[in-house]
Amino acid sequence: MTKQDKPALILIDIQKGFEDEDIKYWGGRRNNLDAETNARKLLDFWRQNNLPIFHIQHCSTHPKSKFVEGKPGNEFQDIIKPNVGEQIIKKNVHSAFIGTDLKQQLDKSIIKKLIIVGLTTDHCISTTARMAADYGYDTFVVSDATAAFDKEGADGQKYSADIIHGTALASLHKEFVTVLTTKELKTEIDI
Amino acid sequence: MTKQDKPALILIDIQKGFEDEDIKYWGGRRNNLDAETNARKLLDFWRQNNLPIFHIQHCSTHPKSKFVEGKPGNEFQDIIKPNVGEQIIKKNVHSAFIGTDLKQQLDKSIIKKLIIVGLTTDHCISTTARMAADYGYDTFVVSDATAAFDKEGADGQKYSADIIHGTALASLHKEFVTVLTTKELKTEIDI
Repeated sequence: MTKQDKPALILIDIQKGFEDEDIKYWGGRRNNLDAETNARKLLDFWRQNNLPIFHIQHCSTHPKSKFVEGKPGNEFQDIIKPNVGEQIIKKNVHSAFIGTDLKQQLDKSIIKKLIIVGLTTDHCISTTARMAADYGYDTFVVSDATAAFDKEGADGQKYSADIIHGTALASLHKEFVTVLTTKELKTEIDI
Repeated sequence: MTKQDKPALILIDIQKGFEDEDIKYWGGRRNNLDAETNARKLLDFWRQNNLPIFHIQHCSTHPKSKFVEGKPGNEFQDIIKPNVGEQIIKKNVHSAFIGTDLKQQLDKSIIKKLIIVGLTTDHCISTTARMAADYGYDTFVVSDATAAFDKEGADGQKYSADIIHGTALASLHKEFVTVLTTKELKTEIDI
């Protein structure tokens, strides 16, 4: 991948609501607390190289959500706070492509490669990555720049955040996207 | 749920290619060999009650795929073969909503509730269910009428088909859809 490919960094839902360690709200613990730090490393790299950046901001329509506009949880985390002039795209559902103009913006700028980071692996990351791949974008998901929470199935079976994270990525890898680490991605980009 | 709600049964990719026990091709074994039998039970129920049925047929554009049109694997499995007059929607990607008129057909018929069954849990079922939910359909995924294959992550970690199936459903449940069994669904529908 080269700078001429104009790969876009898509930062999904890295908002203050996810800083909150409210186990009852989240249904369990989160894995990979380094996700935001790794996303920031990539954001620095993208900024230094003047590559396209899209900040996706989840704006929930559920009154009880931490992500309703106006609530503190809706704000971007300080570590990835958008710079003036960086594109912000607000969404109301899991996919960054539904109810937004993300696709039109990417296509207008002739962007064909997407690097997806953010939260959470099995919800908004997975949904956006699947649609990106199905739309034909060459898509990469950065495994150590995303994270998940513990989950319980309808049958009562419990799964750790690590298993949810690992299986979500395994289901995406090769079939929809290329999964790789922050370090592997920086080696991959020939700038 | 009542008959007046006109819930649609969406049968995804129940095609002969998935009957093939080619471990090398699939990357491992499949779980829940009863998925097609359970899908058929629901199909019988939908036919008896004259409820809307959509057969989704995967038509791959990858020359080596078993699902390329004209290859035996592209045909519907005998157990759920569409009756004359039942709607068939062909797709080329994982989501039954991308590159098809499924959404237009559902909205034209004022269908708001979707019951999703078929193959495979973590690929086309999960992708279609996520988009259905994000579009605002009240969506149900029938856990014992879908199935998955073993998977390996980019990091070499191996996951059994049962874990892939269970975690895929746990990530969908309550967040995107209601996951329930064939038996629970038949109890749920008040006809």
